[in-house]
Amino acid sequence: MSKDPNTIYVGTKPAMSYVLAVITHFNSSDVKKGTLKARGRAITTAIDVVEITRRKFLKELKVDKITIGTEELQREEGTRNVSTIEINLKR
Amino acid sequence: MSKDPNTIYVGTKPAMSYVLAVITHFNSSDVKKGTLKARGRAITTAIDVVEITRRKFLKELKVDKITIGTEELQREEGTRNVSTIEINLKR
Repeated sequence: MSKDPNTIYVGTKPAMSYVLAVITHFNSSDVKKGTLKARGRAITTAIDVVEITRRKFLKELKVDKITIGTEELQREEGTRNVSTIEINLKR
Repeated sequence: MSKDPNTIYVGTKPAMSYVLAVITHFNSSDVKKGTLKARGRAITTAIDVVEITRRKFLKELKVDKITIGTEELQREEGTRNVSTIEINLKR
């Protein structure tokens, strides 16, 4: 996954770590957009992050677009498909 | 949650159970739309269901819209917030 400065990758940490990352990202007044990306079980965390952030911290935050997809992971046993989500945020 | 015949509720069963439900739903040629709803950890399963169905079974299936939200669950210890997803499908 590439290192776009507007993208926050959601993994296995608690949701609040990523909530803080989103708040920090939108802290500069000139930042109007941001993207959360997650795959597999972290998808639920990514949605929790959006919901917690916009309900408790950044009320002006809106979900612009949600895209889902599939990624092929190479494993020793062969390839395994994992679902992905991309959530575009704006304010 | 109400019993809309166009809505499939995704819970804790394996993804393939819901894939079958989606295929059955779209089996009548006059059915053009359907909705998947899930909350909490089942959100990941719901996305797996959409991805498996459209990649392997119903290639003409498209994601029309994805909406996320929060539901308050009443528990003995008080209320707990859980994230929800609604995925509108069409063909």
